[in-house]
Amino acid sequence: MAVVNRQVLLKRRPTGAPTIGDFEVVDAPMPAPTEGEILCRTIYLSLDPYMRGRMNEGRSYATPAQVGKPMVGGTVGEVVESRHPGFARGDFVLGYDGWQAYAVSQGVGARKLDPKQAPISTALGVLGMPGMTAYVGLLDIGKPKEGETVVVSAAAGAVGSAVGQIAKIKGCRVVGVVGSREKCEHVVKELGFDACVNHKAEDLVQALEKACPRGIDIYFENVGGGVLAAVLRLINPNARIPLCGLISEYNATTPPPGPNLRPLLVNRALIKGFIVFDHADRLGEFLRDCTGWVREGRLKYREDIVEGLENAPSAFLGLFQGRNFGKLLVRVGDDPTRSIASR
Amino acid sequence: MAVVNRQVLLKRRPTGAPTIGDFEVVDAPMPAPTEGEILCRTIYLSLDPYMRGRMNEGRSYATPAQVGKPMVGGTVGEVVESRHPGFARGDFVLGYDGWQAYAVSQGVGARKLDPKQAPISTALGVLGMPGMTAYVGLLDIGKPKEGETVVVSAAAGAVGSAVGQIAKIKGCRVVGVVGSREKCEHVVKELGFDACVNHKAEDLVQALEKACPRGIDIYFENVGGGVLAAVLRLINPNARIPLCGLISEYNATTPPPGPNLRPLLVNRALIKGFIVFDHADRLGEFLRDCTGWVREGRLKYREDIVEGLENAPSAFLGLFQGRNFGKLLVRVGDDPTRSIASR
Repeated sequence: MAVVNRQVLLKRRPTGAPTIGDFEVVDAPMPAPTEGEILCRTIYLSLDPYMRGRMNEGRSYATPAQVGKPMVGGTVGEVVESRHPGFARGDFVLGYDGWQAYAVSQGVGARKLDPKQAPISTALGVLGMPGMTAYVGLLDIGKPKEGETVVVSAAAGAVGSAVGQIAKIKGCRVVGVVGSREKCEHVVKELGFDACVNHKAEDLVQALEKACPRGIDIYFENVGGGVLAAVLRLINPNARIPLCGLISEYNATTPPPGPNLRPLLVNRALIKGFIVFDHADRLGEFLRDCTGWVREGRLKYREDIVEGLENAPSAFLGLFQGRNFGKLLVRVGDDPTRSIASR
Repeated sequence: MAVVNRQVLLKRRPTGAPTIGDFEVVDAPMPAPTEGEILCRTIYLSLDPYMRGRMNEGRSYATPAQVGKPMVGGTVGEVVESRHPGFARGDFVLGYDGWQAYAVSQGVGARKLDPKQAPISTALGVLGMPGMTAYVGLLDIGKPKEGETVVVSAAAGAVGSAVGQIAKIKGCRVVGVVGSREKCEHVVKELGFDACVNHKAEDLVQALEKACPRGIDIYFENVGGGVLAAVLRLINPNARIPLCGLISEYNATTPPPGPNLRPLLVNRALIKGFIVFDHADRLGEFLRDCTGWVREGRLKYREDIVEGLENAPSAFLGLFQGRNFGKLLVRVGDDPTRSIASR
């Protein structure tokens, strides 16, 4: 076993766009579990847009990351030592161990994973927080009805790709908004969206108008900026807009103005911010439905896996440039379930 | 009886702020009811911000007013001739006869008023569309809970004054936003609001912060512009924002930008546009509750009555400058119920 614990620390809080210099890669001493604790070896680290908020001091829905401590984040790991009755050496667990190779925890909130059910990495993506975000945001706030038109931004991302496919399962017309031709092709050809708009290449209002001949009933908002303004010009009466993320604005030092809200008034429409953690009561249904859909091939996912914890900072910065394609993960350590499968 | 029918026509569709020249006062021939129709003499005409939208050609939630025809609007009148089995001469009715002294209609949607129950003018205000807008917007979208803080803009207006008082009845802390010192005093001293902010005299964020020491749970939006942006900085988790009107923006030729929506995301908050006509199923409960509260003196109202139909255009323009104080009405003809009462 390793004798040091590689970590990526938050070195300083960024102003505006984060840079590589805001992080520091260090080798810390190996932690040791005491009674009631487990030691986990990180296999996968999830990189998610919400982490930009954790780098700030300001008020948000969760405690900020601490300067000089490892960045926070969801992880899939393997228990290498257990002094906790609920976990055994060799267990795979979904946890929140942060940007580090090893972590000691009391296992609070950790969930054991069965590699036979689904690849363990999916617990950070389509069968994890991003997938559940898509599921509750679309179903509980968007409330899609058969035949309605659903638009989703960041449609090739971890959340957006699940939103669109679940909307298809529910019988909707689904239109993605993405930032490249390759992503457009992917969501239409691989994921089965009805249409896709490349906001970097097309006039957004015109392209959406063409892709949504019956207007827009649901817009699942991941990005902020111009897409929402364009969508609002095309919403139908009683439209619903689950507000999941505003990634284009997370690095802004002064918040940009938003769209004019008159279309909400005229159309009796709804914008509702939500955070997946508030919907923990839906975990069972989410796992049942989405695990089933993944197995049936109706809910596909793509992972963008970066090798090595030391590459986490640059991969994270790429999230804000749309560089990732599918769920962004860092492989921090060897995945024994994958080696076994490929042997 | 009069031999001509004075009318105010929409002469042309305004661009930006309407002017007196967009209206034309004419004396048309008296209409005569045929079988199944009634002829009503208008006593009160309601002037409401939504009428600005009816002057436009564009898509909205209702058919636009027609150029060369009387402006549309709610009215309280007296049946002077009836060839309809449901109405008798002398009946007082709430109708939608528009900006004219007399109108023939089939009585569709007209509601008979009992002057003994409440002054007939209230059917256009606190016990009419504006009161019901306050009632359903606050209760059904805002869902106030005892002890919560409710902020309402245009708080001295027909809708805002009812919102604040109903919120007080529901046990909330209520803070108004208005545009003059006199209105501030009125809503606090006469209507019982806990505090009031004059957005023309005070720094809005600072003043709201002081008036809302426990943050803002509900913001009833009537005006648009800077108030919503200031409120969003102070909303609590799970805040609700019924979006009723955006009067400050109705004359804009290009829609101004809106507020940055990040506070909605972080606070899982909701903005929901609504239109009172969608909530017709609540009419009975609204009338029961609000008639009771008016009688008990818990729901006060103030009427700003302009004399003479020919003065309707200038009074209407004043709405957009905040010139009215309470429910703006035009007395088009003699109110016999009032004469009786004052004799």
